[in-house]
Amino acid sequence: MSFEYASTRPLHSRDVRDWDAEHDVVIVGFGAAGACAAIEAATAGADTLIVERASGPGGTSALSGGEIYLGGSGGTPAQRQAGFQDGTEDLFRYLMLAGGRDADEAKARLYAEQSLAHHDWLVAQGLPYKNTFLPQRMVEPETDDCLIWSGSEEAWPFSDAAKPCPRGHTPQWPGWGGGQLLMNVLAARVRALGVAARYDARALALIVDDAGAVCGAVLRTSGHTVCVRARRAVILCAGGFAMNRDMVRRHAPMLLRSDDPIGSPGDDGSGIRMGTSVGGTAIHMDEGFVSLPFYAPESLIKGIFVNARGQRFINEDCYHGRIGHHALQQAGERIYLLADQATYQAPPAFTRIGIAAAGESWEEVERDLRMPPGTLSATVDVYNRHAAAGADPLFHKSAKWLKPLDEPPFVALDCRIDYAFYPHFTLGGLDTLPTGQVVDATRTPVRGLYAAGRTACGLPRSGAGYSSGLSLADATFFGRQAGRHAAGGT
Amino acid sequence: MSFEYASTRPLHSRDVRDWDAEHDVVIVGFGAAGACAAIEAATAGADTLIVERASGPGGTSALSGGEIYLGGSGGTPAQRQAGFQDGTEDLFRYLMLAGGRDADEAKARLYAEQSLAHHDWLVAQGLPYKNTFLPQRMVEPETDDCLIWSGSEEAWPFSDAAKPCPRGHTPQWPGWGGGQLLMNVLAARVRALGVAARYDARALALIVDDAGAVCGAVLRTSGHTVCVRARRAVILCAGGFAMNRDMVRRHAPMLLRSDDPIGSPGDDGSGIRMGTSVGGTAIHMDEGFVSLPFYAPESLIKGIFVNARGQRFINEDCYHGRIGHHALQQAGERIYLLADQATYQAPPAFTRIGIAAAGESWEEVERDLRMPPGTLSATVDVYNRHAAAGADPLFHKSAKWLKPLDEPPFVALDCRIDYAFYPHFTLGGLDTLPTGQVVDATRTPVRGLYAAGRTACGLPRSGAGYSSGLSLADATFFGRQAGRHAAGGT
Repeated sequence: MSFEYASTRPLHSRDVRDWDAEHDVVIVGFGAAGACAAIEAATAGADTLIVERASGPGGTSALSGGEIYLGGSGGTPAQRQAGFQDGTEDLFRYLMLAGGRDADEAKARLYAEQSLAHHDWLVAQGLPYKNTFLPQRMVEPETDDCLIWSGSEEAWPFSDAAKPCPRGHTPQWPGWGGGQLLMNVLAARVRALGVAARYDARALALIVDDAGAVCGAVLRTSGHTVCVRARRAVILCAGGFAMNRDMVRRHAPMLLRSDDPIGSPGDDGSGIRMGTSVGGTAIHMDEGFVSLPFYAPESLIKGIFVNARGQRFINEDCYHGRIGHHALQQAGERIYLLADQATYQAPPAFTRIGIAAAGESWEEVERDLRMPPGTLSATVDVYNRHAAAGADPLFHKSAKWLKPLDEPPFVALDCRIDYAFYPHFTLGGLDTLPTGQVVDATRTPVRGLYAAGRTACGLPRSGAGYSSGLSLADATFFGRQAGRHAAGGT
Repeated sequence: MSFEYASTRPLHSRDVRDWDAEHDVVIVGFGAAGACAAIEAATAGADTLIVERASGPGGTSALSGGEIYLGGSGGTPAQRQAGFQDGTEDLFRYLMLAGGRDADEAKARLYAEQSLAHHDWLVAQGLPYKNTFLPQRMVEPETDDCLIWSGSEEAWPFSDAAKPCPRGHTPQWPGWGGGQLLMNVLAARVRALGVAARYDARALALIVDDAGAVCGAVLRTSGHTVCVRARRAVILCAGGFAMNRDMVRRHAPMLLRSDDPIGSPGDDGSGIRMGTSVGGTAIHMDEGFVSLPFYAPESLIKGIFVNARGQRFINEDCYHGRIGHHALQQAGERIYLLADQATYQAPPAFTRIGIAAAGESWEEVERDLRMPPGTLSATVDVYNRHAAAGADPLFHKSAKWLKPLDEPPFVALDCRIDYAFYPHFTLGGLDTLPTGQVVDATRTPVRGLYAAGRTACGLPRSGAGYSSGLSLADATFFGRQAGRHAAGGT
């Protein structure tokens, strides 16, 4: 009976009555991380099973834009074609800053050095890139173009730490949703390599041997509960926990300020729970990606964000996820984006950003928003004075986006946290080595267990530093490491 | 050999060769939580062992001020003597707000209802309270007085949520450090009840039986590694993890902004690790208490805090730990406390708060701090204008503390995060039921395991809501629940 098994408690192999199947490597979750793990494991000669609770491959990766953060080693074809030479050290330094106070240096180093080779590997799997560059700031291309500025590369403090280079690579797919193409390509490779796949199969628990090593998984499939032995390893690629609101409340309650978790039903934290049930440690469980996708229209980047007290809080030219993160740190539900006639354009409807107030002077807007005199208006005054001189001494917004907001009428766009679109997902997960091995709190590997994708805490582990493409970069690259190492034994 | 055992991996009872001793209840850690658990377990008739890694009782509790957050049910003797009638619902609502977005309602309810009885129990153990009230705002009494305002009761938004009442009860002990008296009293009771104690004994790992229930602990003592059987339960009261800087980095990296962890060497996270090694879940591991103990002098509460951009960020009349929390959320190392001639008094030396700038006008101070014109000075201008009318529309500081900062000379006190005293400890820990039972991620109890004190995530679980006395209130009260329930079997 399935209710005997819980993701929080492993089954002991001595209690297994029948093994339904036996493979070298068992992978839980057929998103991008699981697919890449399967490809590498099978390529290395391992008899590999991939298990997916949905009725087909895809996971949350298939719902994404398919964008992957790539660069270094002088640049990808798309970067070079656009005139950028991306240095490995610049990529490394960017990743370290993006990772926050506990950036994983070993992973950042490995990824910076091998990111170009990873690009080539993705292309070799069949992933098409048009290799064209769109210099405008956007969430994702509306076309089948490739390269965009997908993070805070040109924005302070990232621009001080590393030479800016665009690194968001989107597959050749018309408009948003290139993640479906990415998963089609990867799933086809998985099939071509003869990897066994079970769909509608949910992993309930891990199985451990007398020595505490992971040696299989309990699956619920077609109304039956079965045990599958993994001769070498189990790889958990089962997503994050954004869809488990109880788990979000206990670990990342700040994310509850947004009603817009993004993911698939599989992002229920069961992968992380299975990992901790056998000694793995979950780290940075409070961290999440939270976005306020207010651009395009790009001209709004010339506006300024203020909180309920009329205070600026961020350089508005940084990545929309960095802005969303800082918006959530502000007290009060109210966040406004101030624009003037020259910079205003209506944000797309999906952002649920409306107009809170408009006026012929900033004092009038301030009054309409019921802010005390000398708050919002003083903020704009200081901003305008310096913007006219091409400077932003307070928040270091780049000169490119500085323009005094002095052409009436003026508008305060309503980005309130309890109404506007602040999509989010979780970044905390199992601590792993660059090999994908799950480690305990002393960083000792748990034998027989690997993790990748958002079940692990990888390169993206700081909401303030997130950039589009980092999660798939991490999932695909470290999924590959996990597959290769798991196939080679532990 | 001790290195065979790790707090991250339980030992199986079948692998135990010799049991060195056997008790009903084994308690790990002889601070306030462990002592109260031992008293209740022994009182309930359980053969109880308490194990402490130091050479005597005390733990971090003995280093504290001994202040306990108490009230409700009409008020404690100290509260009533000072003219306060503390309602149970007011205490409950305060605790819910103090607990943040994931406040533990069941624990807050139980504590609110039984806090007065808990007070009486503490007194019955021998804890002396002078029952006098000091109305001034302070960190701890300099005298042997009892009752103080130890949180944000009178400050917004707490004052809106619950009728304010002082609830910090300090033992009758001359000056700071009443925690030593608290521990002397509790330890004497533990001894009087015939509880077995082992000092210089460090718990290395838990022991589990075939069913996964906790049934003992591995101890390292006097150069030997021994196994102790617990017939009924093990109670983990082993402190938090502030002293394990690697663990702080992986779970609460924001706390690394401060170099001042407070605690004893035992606060290394081993209690939490042992709990998770057998299926317990650690929650809110990113949360910490962080203080900036800038008052007394009380008159500084009439000053205003600004960040590196000259922006206010908090009502200055709230608890110093709430201010410390918000100071750490600000970008940049610089935090200033602005005062004028009428409000300035030198903070005590231990705070390491110096003077950053002084001047005859706020514009001069602003210039000296190299802030752009119209930043700090505009902040003071808005504040002064409303303070003169007894209002603070932006941050809702209470009228009692509002005074225009308009008497030169003016001063900016230097509260920089990388230099001033920001003491901190961790609030994340094992999720437990009000009984003290450690639960897994599905809130199913781990059989045979309890936790209390900072090894658990209790009433205090939000740095923004912390109040002095909450940690000892939680440790003593829920330590008692754990001891009583563990003694009764699970």
